[in-house]
Amino acid sequence: MTSLPLSDALYALQRTTPLVHCMTNYVAMNSTANCLLAIGASPAMLHAPEEVAEFTRLAGALSINIGTPSSDWAEGMQLAAAAAQASGTPWVFDPVAVGATGYRQTLSEKLLAYAPTAIRGNTSEIMTLAGLAHAGRGVDATASIDEARAAAIALAKRQGCIVAMTGERDFITSGQQHWYITGGHALMPRVTTLGCALSATVAAFLAASPASPVAAVAAALASFAVAGARAGEQAAGPGSFQVALLDALYQLTPEDLESFTGLETA
Amino acid sequence: MTSLPLSDALYALQRTTPLVHCMTNYVAMNSTANCLLAIGASPAMLHAPEEVAEFTRLAGALSINIGTPSSDWAEGMQLAAAAAQASGTPWVFDPVAVGATGYRQTLSEKLLAYAPTAIRGNTSEIMTLAGLAHAGRGVDATASIDEARAAAIALAKRQGCIVAMTGERDFITSGQQHWYITGGHALMPRVTTLGCALSATVAAFLAASPASPVAAVAAALASFAVAGARAGEQAAGPGSFQVALLDALYQLTPEDLESFTGLETA
Amino acid sequence: MTSLPLSDALYALQRTTPLVHCMTNYVAMNSTANCLLAIGASPAMLHAPEEVAEFTRLAGALSINIGTPSSDWAEGMQLAAAAAQASGTPWVFDPVAVGATGYRQTLSEKLLAYAPTAIRGNTSEIMTLAGLAHAGRGVDATASIDEARAAAIALAKRQGCIVAMTGERDFITSGQQHWYITGGHALMPRVTTLGCALSATVAAFLAASPASPVAAVAAALASFAVAGARAGEQAAGPGSFQVALLDALYQLTPEDLESFTGLETA
Repeated sequence: MTSLPLSDALYALQRTTPLVHCMTNYVAMNSTANCLLAIGASPAMLHAPEEVAEFTRLAGALSINIGTPSSDWAEGMQLAAAAAQASGTPWVFDPVAVGATGYRQTLSEKLLAYAPTAIRGNTSEIMTLAGLAHAGRGVDATASIDEARAAAIALAKRQGCIVAMTGERDFITSGQQHWYITGGHALMPRVTTLGCALSATVAAFLAASPASPVAAVAAALASFAVAGARAGEQAAGPGSFQVALLDALYQLTPEDLESFTGLETA
Repeated sequence: MTSLPLSDALYALQRTTPLVHCMTNYVAMNSTANCLLAIGASPAMLHAPEEVAEFTRLAGALSINIGTPSSDWAEGMQLAAAAAQASGTPWVFDPVAVGATGYRQTLSEKLLAYAPTAIRGNTSEIMTLAGLAHAGRGVDATASIDEARAAAIALAKRQGCIVAMTGERDFITSGQQHWYITGGHALMPRVTTLGCALSATVAAFLAASPASPVAAVAAALASFAVAGARAGEQAAGPGSFQVALLDALYQLTPEDLESFTGLETA
Repeated sequence: MTSLPLSDALYALQRTTPLVHCMTNYVAMNSTANCLLAIGASPAMLHAPEEVAEFTRLAGALSINIGTPSSDWAEGMQLAAAAAQASGTPWVFDPVAVGATGYRQTLSEKLLAYAPTAIRGNTSEIMTLAGLAHAGRGVDATASIDEARAAAIALAKRQGCIVAMTGERDFITSGQQHWYITGGHALMPRVTTLGCALSATVAAFLAASPASPVAAVAAALASFAVAGARAGEQAAGPGSFQVALLDALYQLTPEDLESFTGLETA
């Protein structure tokens, strides 16, 4: 199956304005909220163990990103993930720099036990999660999509989830079926936390289309691929790129994804 | 009394560069600091129980926003609010998403005991604070200004403070007198934490005009109404809107508020 | 010696993409990461005591900024600084608002014991660190560079480090030799956390040129001076300035620093 109903997924998101509970790193909070608002979702950031589970049950989806973890946040993340699993709320895991420290690996193992609906990371992060390698010194990816492809498929099969591995070219796998997505722009890695914002956007699409999770994940990546390419056309550098990206996400229509040519089976 | 000395309030702010102690959520910190700097105030963000009270006494005003609360922040917020009350420093309370969880309601009750000078929220938040309803799933407002008007007045009377309820149209009440403010732009809800930044801007105006608190609150809202309308004229989406808003706040003059026509008694 | 190899330092940074471990305040995290990415470094923000030391050893440099301190962060900062000292990794200390509270002074004294490679602050902060005065109500500088010059030199001698004191004109001292840097733009103080981002940029240059620390520090300041001046030419206010600054940092070339005329011995 080559085609996925990407435009339906965007239509559903824009029609329902899903509430997305985001537990993300300090660097990404503002930019993530702005990306979600731009594309048409409603972000809410909160993390206290005292309230996360209560809030997760109100949300359409949950997004957890371990970019700047600490003990109290780790506790809140596990409570939120448990609440999402218990209530059948889709949730996305973004294992930022999981290869860099033992602390992140331990925390990631705990979170994986709550069965995320989707995992979004770069090649190094996916390879580390899959147990194949402790690649990557931090947030950078050092392996190519082709090198990491087998790891992504293995991880998807083991977890029974969708894995989205992003980079110059993106790879999505359900464990059984696989897709490539191309698009975006060379300036994207020069703007901080776009990957983090993409993970939360995956959650927003899952909230709006819970019955079509693969299409939801692919629509999120395609949205960034289209908006990123458009932003790149008018940017003089990462500052103007970031501004143009938010405008492009805001202007995105289901027709844009209907005519998107960057999706192919892999 | 229809008219309020809005331009005097802006003149006072720009002449005195008031120091505003902000305890706000992680999403809003950077955008709040930039809004305050743009309009001519001096922001300082700090939250540790070890130092907040010492710092609040140096500041011209305090702004507390519970968007991303946790136990250590809640402790610091109460210490800062107590210091503000004790020293007669004006302070503003922004009860973000107070209706969403019991944790926020408990924390809000504790903070209200320190007698904020002004409360700024959306309709859902003001209705929850007034005890009329637990409306709102998160940071979104679901009631109209007209539906929430009575709640705002009741809250202002009970607390002996000014209540500013913002949305497509804003409502300000001292409990006895009431005003509407119109202006702004439809893109404002598509940029994150503008309401949070507005609350801190209310604090900046209160610091500069402590003897005219109603005019100070109204001038803050009018400033965002004027700057927002101007930013909207040149924006292609929420990214360029945010940039244009900071430029417009920076370019704002007392004459702009002198000729502002969006204020009327209510 | 009037001239310093500024262009070599930028060339080294752009060629090596150094990994910079940043422990900075919540306000500055996003803007700092974006400045580092724009100029060509790779930022990583993390702070948990459980992982900081492990990560610092992977990084090319460490940058510590105490803008929004708390007890858990203070613990992590000391662990990271100790790891940097032990492994000979260059590290930069940014003592934000150290004069404002006793808590910051105590924390700063502890951090100074780990021998930072460079200290970057405004005049008030440097004077407080040097023990000459508790000047400054917060993040603002109230003394001129000329008034604070002796304090900077004394601090550099006592600590055996480089001190960079920035403002309308910048002053750099190794304790023995001194330089002024001029450039930038009047809008820079109207954008939050540019000084914080500059401190992290100093760390990035030190990571790329550890054997030429004075040139590295001066190249960071010169980069902001050149990029700031260029951004100011096209900005209508602090919003568009911020965007243009990131673009200008991205477009900066070693040739720009080769032809920089704003450096002189002092």
